[in-house]
Amino acid sequence: MIIHLKEHLDAAAVERLAGELEAVVVPGNGRAVLVTPAARKTLAPDQEALTDSVFVSDTDMQLADRRYRRETRSIEVGEHRIGGGSDATLMMAGPCSVESREQIEACAELVAGLGVSTLRAGCFKPRTSPYSFQGLGQAGLDLLAEMRERYGLLVITEVRDATHVDAVIEAADIVQIGAKSMYDHGILRRCGSAGKPVLLKRGLATTLQEFVQAAEFILSGGNEDVVLCERGIRTFEPKTRFTLDLCGVAYLKHHTNLPVVVDPTHAMGYAYGVPDLARAATAMGVDGLLIETHPDPPNALSDASQQLDFAQFRELFASLGPVAAAVGRRIV
Amino acid sequence: MIIHLKEHLDAAAVERLAGELEAVVVPGNGRAVLVTPAARKTLAPDQEALTDSVFVSDTDMQLADRRYRRETRSIEVGEHRIGGGSDATLMMAGPCSVESREQIEACAELVAGLGVSTLRAGCFKPRTSPYSFQGLGQAGLDLLAEMRERYGLLVITEVRDATHVDAVIEAADIVQIGAKSMYDHGILRRCGSAGKPVLLKRGLATTLQEFVQAAEFILSGGNEDVVLCERGIRTFEPKTRFTLDLCGVAYLKHHTNLPVVVDPTHAMGYAYGVPDLARAATAMGVDGLLIETHPDPPNALSDASQQLDFAQFRELFASLGPVAAAVGRRIV
Amino acid sequence: MIIHLKEHLDAAAVERLAGELEAVVVPGNGRAVLVTPAARKTLAPDQEALTDSVFVSDTDMQLADRRYRRETRSIEVGEHRIGGGSDATLMMAGPCSVESREQIEACAELVAGLGVSTLRAGCFKPRTSPYSFQGLGQAGLDLLAEMRERYGLLVITEVRDATHVDAVIEAADIVQIGAKSMYDHGILRRCGSAGKPVLLKRGLATTLQEFVQAAEFILSGGNEDVVLCERGIRTFEPKTRFTLDLCGVAYLKHHTNLPVVVDPTHAMGYAYGVPDLARAATAMGVDGLLIETHPDPPNALSDASQQLDFAQFRELFASLGPVAAAVGRRIV
Amino acid sequence: MIIHLKEHLDAAAVERLAGELEAVVVPGNGRAVLVTPAARKTLAPDQEALTDSVFVSDTDMQLADRRYRRETRSIEVGEHRIGGGSDATLMMAGPCSVESREQIEACAELVAGLGVSTLRAGCFKPRTSPYSFQGLGQAGLDLLAEMRERYGLLVITEVRDATHVDAVIEAADIVQIGAKSMYDHGILRRCGSAGKPVLLKRGLATTLQEFVQAAEFILSGGNEDVVLCERGIRTFEPKTRFTLDLCGVAYLKHHTNLPVVVDPTHAMGYAYGVPDLARAATAMGVDGLLIETHPDPPNALSDASQQLDFAQFRELFASLGPVAAAVGRRIV
Repeated sequence: MIIHLKEHLDAAAVERLAGELEAVVVPGNGRAVLVTPAARKTLAPDQEALTDSVFVSDTDMQLADRRYRRETRSIEVGEHRIGGGSDATLMMAGPCSVESREQIEACAELVAGLGVSTLRAGCFKPRTSPYSFQGLGQAGLDLLAEMRERYGLLVITEVRDATHVDAVIEAADIVQIGAKSMYDHGILRRCGSAGKPVLLKRGLATTLQEFVQAAEFILSGGNEDVVLCERGIRTFEPKTRFTLDLCGVAYLKHHTNLPVVVDPTHAMGYAYGVPDLARAATAMGVDGLLIETHPDPPNALSDASQQLDFAQFRELFASLGPVAAAVGRRIV
Repeated sequence: MIIHLKEHLDAAAVERLAGELEAVVVPGNGRAVLVTPAARKTLAPDQEALTDSVFVSDTDMQLADRRYRRETRSIEVGEHRIGGGSDATLMMAGPCSVESREQIEACAELVAGLGVSTLRAGCFKPRTSPYSFQGLGQAGLDLLAEMRERYGLLVITEVRDATHVDAVIEAADIVQIGAKSMYDHGILRRCGSAGKPVLLKRGLATTLQEFVQAAEFILSGGNEDVVLCERGIRTFEPKTRFTLDLCGVAYLKHHTNLPVVVDPTHAMGYAYGVPDLARAATAMGVDGLLIETHPDPPNALSDASQQLDFAQFRELFASLGPVAAAVGRRIV
Repeated sequence: MIIHLKEHLDAAAVERLAGELEAVVVPGNGRAVLVTPAARKTLAPDQEALTDSVFVSDTDMQLADRRYRRETRSIEVGEHRIGGGSDATLMMAGPCSVESREQIEACAELVAGLGVSTLRAGCFKPRTSPYSFQGLGQAGLDLLAEMRERYGLLVITEVRDATHVDAVIEAADIVQIGAKSMYDHGILRRCGSAGKPVLLKRGLATTLQEFVQAAEFILSGGNEDVVLCERGIRTFEPKTRFTLDLCGVAYLKHHTNLPVVVDPTHAMGYAYGVPDLARAATAMGVDGLLIETHPDPPNALSDASQQLDFAQFRELFASLGPVAAAVGRRIV
Repeated sequence: MIIHLKEHLDAAAVERLAGELEAVVVPGNGRAVLVTPAARKTLAPDQEALTDSVFVSDTDMQLADRRYRRETRSIEVGEHRIGGGSDATLMMAGPCSVESREQIEACAELVAGLGVSTLRAGCFKPRTSPYSFQGLGQAGLDLLAEMRERYGLLVITEVRDATHVDAVIEAADIVQIGAKSMYDHGILRRCGSAGKPVLLKRGLATTLQEFVQAAEFILSGGNEDVVLCERGIRTFEPKTRFTLDLCGVAYLKHHTNLPVVVDPTHAMGYAYGVPDLARAATAMGVDGLLIETHPDPPNALSDASQQLDFAQFRELFASLGPVAAAVGRRIV
C-alpha cells in the first residue's frame, strides 16, 4: 500500500504512522509518502485522516507498478531524456572492461564519431574466478572521466560490491548494478540516495517479480530514476551464454512504469548473434541498448567471444536507424 | 559423416557399405547419400573408392549443418518460397483450435482479406489434461480443407501422435509437429516420406542440438523441406507462459541451413505481449511467423488468454510491414 | 469433479450425463465414475439425483489426488506388491538397452542371483539422433521374454511411440513410458486399457502438475495401476546429465495416491554418483528404484558413462538394505 | 596451475614471480603458494628453478580440486571436526531469523536439549522486498552471542553484504554466505582472512563450476576452512520453492576436497517435505545439515511455510540417527 500523506504533517507524526504501519518512509521533498508491506490493504480511521490518497497493491511491486503511475518515468541523462513520452533509444556502447588508455580511447573515438551518446565500460569486474582479470578499479574510473571530458560522452560503469559503491557513483553518469550484485542491499540502499540514474540488471535467475522488487529498494530510498535492464537469464541451453528474455521485456513494459533497456551482448555470448538481437530489441521499442565493442576482441581481457569489432559495430549501428524509425523511434 | 557416393552404384553395394559403416541411406533420386554416426571420421581405402565426396561433422547435426550446405534450403509452399534467397516472411495465422464452422470461417475470412497466405489451426490438440477440449479431429481437418478451397489459403495443422499422422499429412499444406511430439520417432519417420513441408516445433526443454537432430530424422528420411520453429522454452519465470529464445533463433540461422520460424503467441501466453515479440522476430529476418487469432478470445476452447482478437491482429499485421521492410523483407 | 454414480444406472443414462457435463466416463466394473473438467464445481438437482458421491477438485489432478483416495494405490507386480501398506521397494535393474543375447543373459543372471525381482532393459530406444543405435526392437522383446522364463524375473521395458505400443504391452510385466513420450496421447490412451501396471516417467521439463495429469489419461482410461517415476529434470547445470528432483518426489508422495519410483542413473549421467543417489532415494521411502547396470559399460551401445559395472552394482545393492531398514522398508 | 615454491624464497622474489605469471599469492605460513589462471600450463626454466611442485588444472577450480588434495579438508568447529576422516554430520538447526529474545531462547533450549551442536539464525536477512522484515541486525548478533554463552552452542549466522561483514565474522563460529551474496567480492575477499570456517551457499542459478570458483576466492585469500552448501537451485517447477540438487552434491563430493552440507528447508519451501529430504541427504553421507525450526512457524516473520515446529523437528531428529548409522555416520 502506497500512502500519500496530507501536506504539512510534521516529521514526528510521519514517523509514528510509519511505525504503526511497519512502513518505509520514502525520502523526498513535498508531502511524505509511505509504503507498507503489500499485505496491508486498509487503514484505521485515524490513520486515514492523515492521508491524501492510497494505492493498494497485490504484490511488493508497488512504486514501480504502472497502475500506480501510468506514465513510464521520464529520466534525464545528460542532455537526453528516456522514458516518458520520449522517442529516444539510448545507445550505450563500449568495451566490456577498461583495459588501457589506448583501448578505451579507441572506443571513445569510435562511439563519439558515430554520434552515440553513452560510453560503457567496466572497472570493477564481477569475475567468477579469482585467477582472471579483475578490472582496473579506480584507475579505470579515472580514464573514463577523462573520456567523458574529451569526447563529450556520457559514461555508464558498474558497481560490483558495496566496498566501492561511492567511487562508482561519483564517477558515473549512469550507475550500473550488475546481474550478480542486484540483490546486494548495501549497493541498493546506497543507490537510493545516489542522485544519479541507476541501471539495474536482472540477475541470472531472478524472476521478474524479484527484479522489480530490487528496484523498489532504490525507489523507496528516494531515487526516482531507475532503469531496468534485461541481459539474459540462465536456462538449460548451452549453445548460447544466456537466454535473452524478451517475453520478460514485454512484461516489464506492460506492468511497470520504469524504462527498459536490453543488453544482447551478454545474453548471446557470441558476436555473430548480437546484431540480430539488437534489431529485435529495437523493434520492441525499448528505451536503450547496451552493446559491447572492442578494438581487438580476440585479445580482450574479458568476454573475448562476444564483443563486436569496430567494423561490426558500425554496420550494426547503421542498420538500427531504419528499424527504430519503423516503430517511430530514434537511436541516440 | 555424410558420404555422397559415386553414380551408378547398385543398390546392393550401397546397402553393403551402409551396413559396414552403420550408416543411414538417405532415400532420393540420383546418387546415394549415406550418413554415419558423427564419431566416424575416416573411410577405408576400398570404401573411399566408392565415394564422390564426404562431409565430416563433429556432431549429429549433419544434413542440417550450414557447413555442409551453405545456402538456407529453399522451400516451396503453395506459390510462395521461403528460405534460399527469398525475402518472404510467411505469416501463418488463425485460431489455436478449429472449434466450429463459424469460428474457422471467420478466421479464414479475416486472414484471406488481409492477404495473409496461410491459415493455422489445430484439430488434434496435445492437451495436458484428459478432461479438457481435445480438438475436433478429422472433422476439423475437413473444415480446414473447405477453407483452403473457398479462400485460396494454405493450411498448416498439427499432428499430435503417430495414430493420425497419415490423416494430417493428407490434409495439410505444411505439417506441424508440436513441441510435445517432437521426439516422437513414429511421427518423425513418417514425415520423412511425407512429400510435404514439415514445420518442427522445438520442445519445451529441447536443446538446440537435440532440436536439429530431430530434424535430421526427417531429413535423413528423404524429406528435404524442414522448417524449424522456436515457440518458447520452459524456464523459471512464472509471469510469462514460456521464454521465447531469440538467442536460439540467432544460433539456428547461423549454424543450420534450415528456414526458421517464430511463434510468439505460445511463448508469451498473453495477448498483450504478442505484437512486440512479433515485431522483434520480424526484425531478425525470420522466414515465418505463427500467430494465434480468434474471433472471441475470452471464450476460446483452448489458449484463451493468448489469442489476439481480430482488431489486435489487424493492428499488428499493419505494423509488421514497415519493420520487415527495414530489414529488406516482406510479409506474405 | 469426480462423480460416483448410483448403482444400476443404464449405460444410456451415464452417457447422457457425461455429455451434459463434458465428462470422461472411467471404464470399470461396478458403478460408473465420471470425471468432469476441474472448473465444474456443482451439479444441477436432477444430476445430483443420479449421484452417490462427488469429489470436487481445484485442478485436473483428480483421480490421482490423495484427498480423493487417501491410501497410496496398492499395485501387484508378479508376486510383489508396492504402494498401499507395503514396505517393499522394487528394484528394477539391468542395462540401458538389450544389445545381444550374451549381454542380457549376463544381466539377468546377476540380477536373479542377487534376488532382485525385476529386470529392466530397453528395446525401442528414444534416441535423439537418427544416426545412433536405435534398439533391437521386437527381437529385444523376445530376448526379454526368454529371460523372464528362464530366470523367473519380472520385466520392465519401454514404449517409444504409438506404432509399437501393443508389442510392448504384450511383452512387459510393467510398461514403461519414457520421459520423451510421456505427453503422447496415442500411448497414454492405449495404456489406459493395457491391463498391466504402467510406469510413467516425468518429462525433461514437465511440471509436477502436468506429470500427474499425464497419469490421469491412463487412470481415466480405466487402468488403476500407474506408478510415477522421477528421473531428473533439465536445468542449467552442465556437470550432471539432469537434476534429480527429490523435492518433486516429496511433493508427489504427499499430494498424490500413486506409488513413486526414482531413477538415479539417468538423472546423474555418471556412474560415480548413482550409489549415493540411490541411497538417498531409498532413505525417502520410495516404492522402487530403476538402476542401470551393464557387463561392460565403456562398450555399451547407449548410455556408456552412466551404467554401473557388475561389481559396482553388487556393492550398491549390498548397501541399500541397511538404509531401507533404517526407514522401515526392504528391497525386493 | 598451483605452484608450491621452494622454501626460504624472499618475499620480493615471490612477488616478482607472481607478477610474471599473473598469479595470486596465497597467504599462509611456510612456503609460498601461487595460483595462476588455469590457462597457464608450463613454466620457464628459471621459474621452474624456484618451484618445489606444481599442479596443473584444466579449469579455475584449483585449490578445491580433489586431484590437488585427495583428502576432504578437515575443519574444526568448536570441539567437533567435519570432513577429513570424520564420521560427524553437523546438525545446524534454528529459526530462519532471530525475532526476539523469547523466540531464539526457545530454539536454543530445544536444540541444546537434543544434543545438537550448532544453532542457526539470521540477523541480516537478504529479503527480496524492501517492505518486509529485514532482520534485527546487530541486536540479533548480540542475542546469538548470549545463547552461545548460556547453552554452549556453536553459532552460524549469515552475512548479507559487505557493509556488515566484520560484525558477522566477529559474532559467528561459522560465517554463512547466503545464496544471493555468493558472488560478492567484498564478502568473499574479507572471508579469505576471517580466521573462521565459512559456509558458502550455492546461488540460485550458480553452476557447480562457478560455485567452486567462488570458494576459490576464499581459499586463495588464505582461509582453508570452506564448506559448500547446496540449498536448492531455481528451476521451472513451481510446486516447490527450489529444486534440491543432490546430483550436484554427488558431483561436489567426488570432484572437490571441500566438506559438503545440505539445506533441505530452503529447497523445499514447505515443512512437509523437509524430513524426507533431510534423511535423503543423510544417506548420502554429507558433512552437515541446515534445518529451520521455529516455536510457532505460522507466525514467523520470514519463511513461515517451511520451518518445522518443535514436535516435527524432534521427530525428524530422532529418525536421522538410524539413517546416519546405516551409512557409517553419526549426527552431532
